[in-house]
Amino acid sequence: MPVTLADNEYGKSRIRLAKVTRHGDHHDFKDLTVGVHLRGDFEAAHLEGNNRLILPTDTMKNTVYALAKDHPLEQIEDFALHLASYFLTNNPQVTDVRIEIAEHPWSRYQRYSFVKGSGERRLTWITANRAGVSIESGIGDLTVLKTTGSGFVGYIKDRFTTLKETTDRIFATVIQARWRYRDRDVPFNTCWQGVRQTILDTFAEHDSLSVQQTAYETGRQALENFEQIEQIHLSLPNRHHLLMDLSPFGMENPNEIFIPTEEPHGLIEVTCHRPSACASPSPEPG
Amino acid sequence: MPVTLADNEYGKSRIRLAKVTRHGDHHDFKDLTVGVHLRGDFEAAHLEGNNRLILPTDTMKNTVYALAKDHPLEQIEDFALHLASYFLTNNPQVTDVRIEIAEHPWSRYQRYSFVKGSGERRLTWITANRAGVSIESGIGDLTVLKTTGSGFVGYIKDRFTTLKETTDRIFATVIQARWRYRDRDVPFNTCWQGVRQTILDTFAEHDSLSVQQTAYETGRQALENFEQIEQIHLSLPNRHHLLMDLSPFGMENPNEIFIPTEEPHGLIEVTCHRPSACASPSPEPG
Amino acid sequence: MPVTLADNEYGKSRIRLAKVTRHGDHHDFKDLTVGVHLRGDFEAAHLEGNNRLILPTDTMKNTVYALAKDHPLEQIEDFALHLASYFLTNNPQVTDVRIEIAEHPWSRYQRYSFVKGSGERRLTWITANRAGVSIESGIGDLTVLKTTGSGFVGYIKDRFTTLKETTDRIFATVIQARWRYRDRDVPFNTCWQGVRQTILDTFAEHDSLSVQQTAYETGRQALENFEQIEQIHLSLPNRHHLLMDLSPFGMENPNEIFIPTEEPHGLIEVTCHRPSACASPSPEPG
Amino acid sequence: MPVTLADNEYGKSRIRLAKVTRHGDHHDFKDLTVGVHLRGDFEAAHLEGNNRLILPTDTMKNTVYALAKDHPLEQIEDFALHLASYFLTNNPQVTDVRIEIAEHPWSRYQRYSFVKGSGERRLTWITANRAGVSIESGIGDLTVLKTTGSGFVGYIKDRFTTLKETTDRIFATVIQARWRYRDRDVPFNTCWQGVRQTILDTFAEHDSLSVQQTAYETGRQALENFEQIEQIHLSLPNRHHLLMDLSPFGMENPNEIFIPTEEPHGLIEVTCHRPSACASPSPEPG
Repeated sequence: MPVTLADNEYGKSRIRLAKVTRHGDHHDFKDLTVGVHLRGDFEAAHLEGNNRLILPTDTMKNTVYALAKDHPLEQIEDFALHLASYFLTNNPQVTDVRIEIAEHPWSRYQRYSFVKGSGERRLTWITANRAGVSIESGIGDLTVLKTTGSGFVGYIKDRFTTLKETTDRIFATVIQARWRYRDRDVPFNTCWQGVRQTILDTFAEHDSLSVQQTAYETGRQALENFEQIEQIHLSLPNRHHLLMDLSPFGMENPNEIFIPTEEPHGLIEVTCHRPSACASPSPEPG
Repeated sequence: MPVTLADNEYGKSRIRLAKVTRHGDHHDFKDLTVGVHLRGDFEAAHLEGNNRLILPTDTMKNTVYALAKDHPLEQIEDFALHLASYFLTNNPQVTDVRIEIAEHPWSRYQRYSFVKGSGERRLTWITANRAGVSIESGIGDLTVLKTTGSGFVGYIKDRFTTLKETTDRIFATVIQARWRYRDRDVPFNTCWQGVRQTILDTFAEHDSLSVQQTAYETGRQALENFEQIEQIHLSLPNRHHLLMDLSPFGMENPNEIFIPTEEPHGLIEVTCHRPSACASPSPEPG
Repeated sequence: MPVTLADNEYGKSRIRLAKVTRHGDHHDFKDLTVGVHLRGDFEAAHLEGNNRLILPTDTMKNTVYALAKDHPLEQIEDFALHLASYFLTNNPQVTDVRIEIAEHPWSRYQRYSFVKGSGERRLTWITANRAGVSIESGIGDLTVLKTTGSGFVGYIKDRFTTLKETTDRIFATVIQARWRYRDRDVPFNTCWQGVRQTILDTFAEHDSLSVQQTAYETGRQALENFEQIEQIHLSLPNRHHLLMDLSPFGMENPNEIFIPTEEPHGLIEVTCHRPSACASPSPEPG
Repeated sequence: MPVTLADNEYGKSRIRLAKVTRHGDHHDFKDLTVGVHLRGDFEAAHLEGNNRLILPTDTMKNTVYALAKDHPLEQIEDFALHLASYFLTNNPQVTDVRIEIAEHPWSRYQRYSFVKGSGERRLTWITANRAGVSIESGIGDLTVLKTTGSGFVGYIKDRFTTLKETTDRIFATVIQARWRYRDRDVPFNTCWQGVRQTILDTFAEHDSLSVQQTAYETGRQALENFEQIEQIHLSLPNRHHLLMDLSPFGMENPNEIFIPTEEPHGLIEVTCHRPSACASPSPEPG
């Protein structure tokens, strides 16, 4: 019963790239981390050690820097599409290209100076083959918290239940969002800002009966507000803030003093889509 | 065009659990991180905020501790199967249970004392529904390095190539391995130790013409040596060790002085299986 | 030649504390990490295992939560002074108390909701004994970058020099600042905001001939602008942004495309003070 | 009231260095992280931006690699002394050199292959000036745990006490040790292994009445066993393992099931020395 190579992929991860664009009276600054991953006709490399069709990952890295030189990098989705197209066009042995870009935000301070933003990142994932391309964008580590407007009651009680019902708790989470665009005819920057705004507004305004309900509502609103999106995935860790028990000291604690924790944490994940998306889950032609 | 809940999952991550087992003249110590994630009939919670069928993640956590009390924890696969079975049996609204356990190794120093091992972890993933169960085990962060027996030549050269061919380089990687067992009738501890040994031996002894070739050879040997395994996935980051250029100082550097780097890194991934596995990709009945 | 206990200190680190303050139409939210460390008459504990004078670190933790309940937490320096005073007053066996507080910034989004700021932290260190108190405040991880206005020329060249002189480079750093107040009669919030502003302005506007020069200038300006400060320490890692060499591809790179790196990094540290501070390095009476 | 430069230091941190030494039938492999920091006549650089006396940190880095080429690296203390001597000899403007080296352990697997050890590191700190040198060595992140032989009773009880006394608990810590050698005539490798063994044995065998008592006993034993050491500092975080309360489920938990935690943690620090060390705290002549 012989062994077979079922699947393979290779590439370069964590290519760090900064670009300065000089305007007359100010500079722009972009700070990206890029990943390039390829699939294709690489069986000879795996089985025989024949590298004839292998593009070295070092060359992928060089290519990213070289192509960034003449690309504005204004929208990371555009740069990722450009990279995917380059690798497909110049490498007939490659069947699939996967480009991942994370943009690290910096806030302008003065004309040439910047202050690093939070750990939040703007993300894109491009998966392209010769039949089409899938464009996904997202947000990494958008950390939010609300001090009220969140409860959790009416759940199952069994012999291992100790959690108390509450109609008022802290809701803190680190939002990971990833959505798929219907096609490439999208104003990516505008859309990204809009989805981010929708996520923040829903989090702030939704009267939450559970993390699940808020997660679904967030996805629903994003799809309703942005027709360019056909599917969105949200992952919300529940960063529990435990009410400190001050009663041993003869003190009350009416939802004032909390212990923030990271471990363990609840993890709630939802995917929302439009039913029509079911009919065409495969990538749209590019 | 209404929005639909396409998929959802929720649970508790990073449940930290330690267990001391007292024998006459020595103690055993187990150190685990457990995750529990459920799918099922949770639409009412997402759409209406009705938590009637929601088992709180806090209760999942309590259940893990309570069930660990009366379970030997000798094989993490057994404990994960036990947890999966418990949640399926006691929660008719649940269709799928996913249990993840990471075991953190400690080396015995004396009868009651232990020294923490490396960051390497023993892993298992159990996915169970009422039709069957999939049992996967693996290794996280097994960091290895060889000082010779690795080269990389004969690859594509294009306008962005600067990498020099070499027949002798350092090969350093942080192995992530994950394999699927054919069924549950497996001596898990023995198998895990055996696959780990195979991975280490292949890494040490294989005359590597590329990371791809070594990755494939590792997967092939694991499948050949262990008939209980039907598929294995290996992910090998290439932790490049750059030869320091000492020539500006009038010095030679015959593969002696290197700059270890973590960023960027190559990433090579392979999946190997037995062709028969293709015919039955679905989980075996539990 | 007997062995002696030369020094000792103990306490609790990383006490995580969040406080919600409810106003009519909005809430305030504070997120702190507190450390409490004591010195005193603890020789019996170390030499004989006699814990009669040991205040458990668990009790220190409880005390922090209990005292936070009735303290506004508006200025972390005030809360740290309050904690230090409490431990000194209630523990005659204690000679020195060291309180460290890090405040994690959140930006208000709406009345009850907040977005996590950057990794930057507001810091304070209080060291108190029965003779007086030293009050230090600071900033952790203020990450900044300028795209021009920084050069480095005229340095020593020796046989190991390969660095090229430059009159225009990226200057990126993660500022750690720590300053000592002359006494406790200080508007801490206003001062902290002011010093932070001075640091940012100096970084942005100073035409840097070296990191050393900018570090000194920053300290000098802080002391000139804030008479309440008698000494300031600044630590500036130089997060090198390497100019990517595109010449092998026949391309020029006029300071546009850079490789951001974290390892290795330069590290420049300066301490500036007023000469009068030399005369009284000991803590001021509290 | 003018501002003065009170203190300054600069250098290069996190210089990553690997060296392969080729023997007939096997290779040796060393993996180090080096830091170089200088003090001296650098006022012109800080005040005027005059870099005439500044040795660039980039040159420090190059020097480390170049000097490593012809040095065996068998004992990191020797290499650090060699580096310190080089920088002092070749830089008359430098008054003080501080070299820090961390060695990352790898275990030999076969003749040319190695497996990464734990996060534990062997450390050295050399501080040298033209009058003498101070040689310190140490251990970073030696993580240990014992399941019994540790208690904590008889401590202060006050209104904020909730901790229960116990005569049997888990004692888990991540040992940081740093000791100063009397002079440079020391078999550094033998001594380091010996101190490490003493630390492990004391931890395992000492019947602990408090972390303080065990910390002191560890220091005392190290000084008694190794006359070459004149002072030792130990820092022991108390990684609390909380007994899980299973009583709500009608179950007992006789010290079997624990919740390992990292935050908050106790932190116990002791310095032990020989009284004679008091008389000569200044560095011995080199």
